[in-house]
Amino acid sequence: MTYGFQLLARDGAARTGAITTAHGAIATPAFMPVGTAATVKAMTPEAVRETGADIVLANTYHLMLRPGAERLARLGGLHDFMHWQRPILTDSGGFQVYSLSDLRQLDEAGVTFKSHIDGSEMHLSPERSIEVQHLLDADITMAFDECTPFPATEAVAAASMQLSMRWAERCRAAFVARPGYALFGIVQGGMYPDLRAESAARLLQIGFDGYAVGGLAVGEGQALTFSTLEGTVPHLPADRPRYLMGVGRPGDIVGAVQRGIDMFDCVMPTRSGRTGQLFSPRATLNIRNARHADDPRPVDADCRCPLCRHYSRGYLHHLFRAKEILGAMLATWHNLTHYQDLMASLRAAISRGSLEAFAAEHARLATMGDIDPV
Amino acid sequence: MTYGFQLLARDGAARTGAITTAHGAIATPAFMPVGTAATVKAMTPEAVRETGADIVLANTYHLMLRPGAERLARLGGLHDFMHWQRPILTDSGGFQVYSLSDLRQLDEAGVTFKSHIDGSEMHLSPERSIEVQHLLDADITMAFDECTPFPATEAVAAASMQLSMRWAERCRAAFVARPGYALFGIVQGGMYPDLRAESAARLLQIGFDGYAVGGLAVGEGQALTFSTLEGTVPHLPADRPRYLMGVGRPGDIVGAVQRGIDMFDCVMPTRSGRTGQLFSPRATLNIRNARHADDPRPVDADCRCPLCRHYSRGYLHHLFRAKEILGAMLATWHNLTHYQDLMASLRAAISRGSLEAFAAEHARLATMGDIDPV
Repeated sequence: MTYGFQLLARDGAARTGAITTAHGAIATPAFMPVGTAATVKAMTPEAVRETGADIVLANTYHLMLRPGAERLARLGGLHDFMHWQRPILTDSGGFQVYSLSDLRQLDEAGVTFKSHIDGSEMHLSPERSIEVQHLLDADITMAFDECTPFPATEAVAAASMQLSMRWAERCRAAFVARPGYALFGIVQGGMYPDLRAESAARLLQIGFDGYAVGGLAVGEGQALTFSTLEGTVPHLPADRPRYLMGVGRPGDIVGAVQRGIDMFDCVMPTRSGRTGQLFSPRATLNIRNARHADDPRPVDADCRCPLCRHYSRGYLHHLFRAKEILGAMLATWHNLTHYQDLMASLRAAISRGSLEAFAAEHARLATMGDIDPV
Repeated sequence: MTYGFQLLARDGAARTGAITTAHGAIATPAFMPVGTAATVKAMTPEAVRETGADIVLANTYHLMLRPGAERLARLGGLHDFMHWQRPILTDSGGFQVYSLSDLRQLDEAGVTFKSHIDGSEMHLSPERSIEVQHLLDADITMAFDECTPFPATEAVAAASMQLSMRWAERCRAAFVARPGYALFGIVQGGMYPDLRAESAARLLQIGFDGYAVGGLAVGEGQALTFSTLEGTVPHLPADRPRYLMGVGRPGDIVGAVQRGIDMFDCVMPTRSGRTGQLFSPRATLNIRNARHADDPRPVDADCRCPLCRHYSRGYLHHLFRAKEILGAMLATWHNLTHYQDLMASLRAAISRGSLEAFAAEHARLATMGDIDPV
């Protein structure tokens, strides 16, 4: 399948469509479960697919450290390795270099850092990041950029963005085009609208298959995320997918879709699942809370996931109290189903032209709080 | 379904047949995965069933401490609670009282002990153990006995066995008979054939729906296990199932089936799975070993489990190195499949009258060692 993006419907700034890649199609707006180390934690790939996911994200930084990009390529690439024959997007590794490693040096060439696993010295540059993502066989490769700190002065944000744009050009040059494979650029510029516009213009000049908005979800708050999107998305071409990196909570996703975003990724549903935080339309439950111990009802009576179809809150509470792996498995499954069903509802609402009503109802439910105790 | 045991074929002392219970049938010889806290660790019940298991074992001691027997009964009993609508056997709680708790007092009445979870004082007696297993809704209830230490002098073993026999009588009296539900007695007597014979005779006098051999798999070694079975099984009635508790490794199971045992349980396949020990006909692999890191081959090319159908040794090695939950999930699934396929092969060999040849080939393969490195 060649790479492409078909728009199917619009509703205000929101769009629904389909991205096609070498490993299949992705309905948008799409949520990508995070499979950091070539596994969506506590899930089989079959279960990930059952939640409704068309694509997963894997982390270049983690995989280049372990098991190593060249080894992974010898083992047939990421799709075979993790038994996921559908689309995969890899990040560039940049974000984790800044957040996880002991960073040694950053200059025009790239970054030298120490592995957080064994302390060994590693190097990442635009060229090496693209090469690693090629070795992993990512359907969608992300440009390697600098992670602008937040907060940052305009001068710092500008210098960081300009470095990222020079790197974006090197990424484009390093990327080996193949049918069905795509390279996305990343808009930077901190919370400064002019810098965002400049960054978008520069990326368009270089030319990418999709455009991500980076440097958000760094603690700036939902209002600033949304206003930054409003200042950025209009500078992006309508005929390319738009990806808001690292976002977010369900309400963040609804608001970003209303502002024209097509793709999302976040550890929220998986990480929360492992700690016993369960999403429902009305509330986020902490299933470890004692009030669930005797509750025969499902977490969410309207949810189609195995947890909600087959098990009580009392059972899930027990599993978490007993530190049983099945607790993490079922809670993750539920949360990912909740996210994917939200995306399906958003796609349907856009198709019907009723996104505004859907978003209002979504927000209203979220204020109701959990069902009454038994 | 009423409780019963149908013998279908014999081969020497070995037999194959079917136990029927309120929640369905169990093909024998049967291996029961251990679901200590109302979950077979790292497995969904659907996955447990896919391995071929007809029945699981749950631990009375753990469940009476957490979530509590009365609470579990209010939540609908163990089948609904853990979403396993097939047969369940519960142990009596005795073994864990001796091995896990801070034992306060043992007398004719029963045992008083401190919970290993929160130190609270608990009591178990023959009557309470039977009541708890009733509350759990176990298809097969085990008599509450004393765990005879090993090694023990003949006098100690005799006194312990006689206490267990008096308790067995109280268990029989306390058990509420319902169609499809069974109570098993447990032969004790340490490694002393005369005591084993006396214990068996006493249990037969009381009358049980099945007979377990207890007090083995306590470090006595395979030769002594087998000779004790040879001295015990002939005293048990042919028309009732025989259950060897807590056994064991695949070779132990083959030998015990040859000596007339019908049922087994052991944490070996599940616990080993979580630590990266993988069973194959030729060897037990430690998948964490570096030699597997680049190996594109499955753990066992002849195995039908998802791990062996879809993933390389290199991937499983990676999952264990990265401490990913999916590693425990897939390795457990594999090990349980290996065990269930062994049981299916044993049943088929008995039906064909070729158990001796099967056992010889099983032993021969086990000496071969793992396949050569790539």
